[in-house]
Amino acid sequence: MTLEAIRYRAGSLQILNQLLLPHQTAYDEIRSVQDAYEAIKSMKVRGAPAIAIVGCLSLAVELRAGAGGDDPVTFIRESLCHLTSARPTAVNMGRAARELMEFAENESMEKNSEQLRESVIAWIEAMLERDVNDNRKIGNYGAQHILSGVPRDSVTILTHCNTGSLATAGYGTALGVVRSLHALGRLKRVYCTETRPYNQGSRLTAYEAVAEGIPATLITDSMAALTMREMNITAVVVGADRVVANGDTANKVGTYQLAISAKHHGIPFYVAAPSTSCDLSLESGRDIVIEVRPPEELTSINGVPIAAPGIEVWNPAFDVTPHQLITGGIITELGVFLPSELQAALTGRLTAL
Amino acid sequence: MTLEAIRYRAGSLQILNQLLLPHQTAYDEIRSVQDAYEAIKSMKVRGAPAIAIVGCLSLAVELRAGAGGDDPVTFIRESLCHLTSARPTAVNMGRAARELMEFAENESMEKNSEQLRESVIAWIEAMLERDVNDNRKIGNYGAQHILSGVPRDSVTILTHCNTGSLATAGYGTALGVVRSLHALGRLKRVYCTETRPYNQGSRLTAYEAVAEGIPATLITDSMAALTMREMNITAVVVGADRVVANGDTANKVGTYQLAISAKHHGIPFYVAAPSTSCDLSLESGRDIVIEVRPPEELTSINGVPIAAPGIEVWNPAFDVTPHQLITGGIITELGVFLPSELQAALTGRLTAL
Repeated sequence: MTLEAIRYRAGSLQILNQLLLPHQTAYDEIRSVQDAYEAIKSMKVRGAPAIAIVGCLSLAVELRAGAGGDDPVTFIRESLCHLTSARPTAVNMGRAARELMEFAENESMEKNSEQLRESVIAWIEAMLERDVNDNRKIGNYGAQHILSGVPRDSVTILTHCNTGSLATAGYGTALGVVRSLHALGRLKRVYCTETRPYNQGSRLTAYEAVAEGIPATLITDSMAALTMREMNITAVVVGADRVVANGDTANKVGTYQLAISAKHHGIPFYVAAPSTSCDLSLESGRDIVIEVRPPEELTSINGVPIAAPGIEVWNPAFDVTPHQLITGGIITELGVFLPSELQAALTGRLTAL
Repeated sequence: MTLEAIRYRAGSLQILNQLLLPHQTAYDEIRSVQDAYEAIKSMKVRGAPAIAIVGCLSLAVELRAGAGGDDPVTFIRESLCHLTSARPTAVNMGRAARELMEFAENESMEKNSEQLRESVIAWIEAMLERDVNDNRKIGNYGAQHILSGVPRDSVTILTHCNTGSLATAGYGTALGVVRSLHALGRLKRVYCTETRPYNQGSRLTAYEAVAEGIPATLITDSMAALTMREMNITAVVVGADRVVANGDTANKVGTYQLAISAKHHGIPFYVAAPSTSCDLSLESGRDIVIEVRPPEELTSINGVPIAAPGIEVWNPAFDVTPHQLITGGIITELGVFLPSELQAALTGRLTAL
């Protein structure tokens, strides 16, 4: 069984409601931009790539029903503005909105309303397809790179957070690498950290693994180093929220600690991310601002208090892993690169082997 | 305010019910050995030193009321057997039972029943006092050692799990060091990890810190390395379940990972433990068997499921930190020693500076 987090057919969109996971598997119908806005805002859908895809697909659904009438450009602009405001920190939605708006404005000079709707819908559908294809390429490049170090054996992977079908248009980035290894029959097991405080590992990655029959074991974040020592981990593979020019990588908090432990054990550490997550405008990770989230994420679970009342909390959502610790490489849809090669590779000055 | 987890006066024993923490502060009366057995078994009291103290004090309460009649030795033996069986892995209870039994048997050769009861009660009361005094010495030695590296400044400590009043007869080991620093006016702040999966940090250490006004900040286990990099941590101080001859230390899972991160950041890493937790009969940490606990500790909180159904789980309760990573030293009631000095120090061949 393949997990489908986003179900799209021309004119129809359904999303797996992640608020109900892992206890209930239910799809919600997204009939309008407003439906998508609410689903994003309430975190029924999460993960920066998935947010952008669902937002744009909801627009395609409305356009196919004729939304915008004689002035689709205004409708598209207002819709994209609204969608971008649902979770402003999710950069992919903002980037997609800018690109799509530019495309729509250019098209509007030559086409009538009906033709414009058609070409915008086609653009959005191509975006969905490209995202899944890029993830598959990431999965294959990553799997081949990891396997090149162990020609005969099955491999054991350790991963963090959720970077699978539930966070992307499908397939996943770091978890896409795991999927590819599994598809090749070369995955012995994946260890997934529960990923406190939001538990994306225990709720979402575990859910994807169970749903697809991928051999997986859940551990607490604090067990990662012990797992590296005891469980013969071949590689650590994580996703990225942002990779900057020198290869420094912002990702879910805990990634930095995993990279330190991997280095200590001599285990290759990989970051898997589409080139759209690479931000060459920033020189180094020092320029990345770390988002600090509310204390309640640590002090309660599902509204039930789990910590001593009155305790202060520090809850940074992300950390930055310096490029020196990314010893395996950065896996993109263009190939696997050392952090030092990234900039040249993304600007076309280096070709993947 | 000083937190009292064990309230003892001749003939009367009360314990803070840790099952109700942090939501409710309630003391339970322990009137008999059977009361203590049930409190230990149900984990109203936890922490190896605290278990031994509460067990023995319950025996003292019964003896003061005349238990054992004309044959107190038999009563003492049966009581200690029963108490040791409540949680057989808590080594301190077993050790205390052996020592107390030997003492009682020797005393019984010279004394009548009433005198024997008196001297056994006195032995137990001395044990309580010694444990608290040893912890205060650990606190002071540890504080002085840490401060010797930073003559002028206040210090910031990172700790793991609960090693305070709630785990010992009072004061605590690693948290005792924190208490001593606070009492000296030299503690800027302590960062405590929530310590998944049993949350001793968020439930118990946070509770002790709030109760005593110690400036403390709760973080997830995955944030420790980031905290070391961003928060100017002076030292990491943890407790120990067992320290073996070469200094390798078994402690709550996650300790190993903290030690690796501390080493990476050049931050001294200390283990605080009374000499009774040192087991010179084992050569190295390789000889320590790691206890694996039930999956439910990861997959639910207070009976509410938090993970995807069907996911496999690995839940080791402890890990072993190799002595090479214990860069600050091992803090005992005899002084602070390098792992390589421990054996000589404990066998009287080395005196602390």
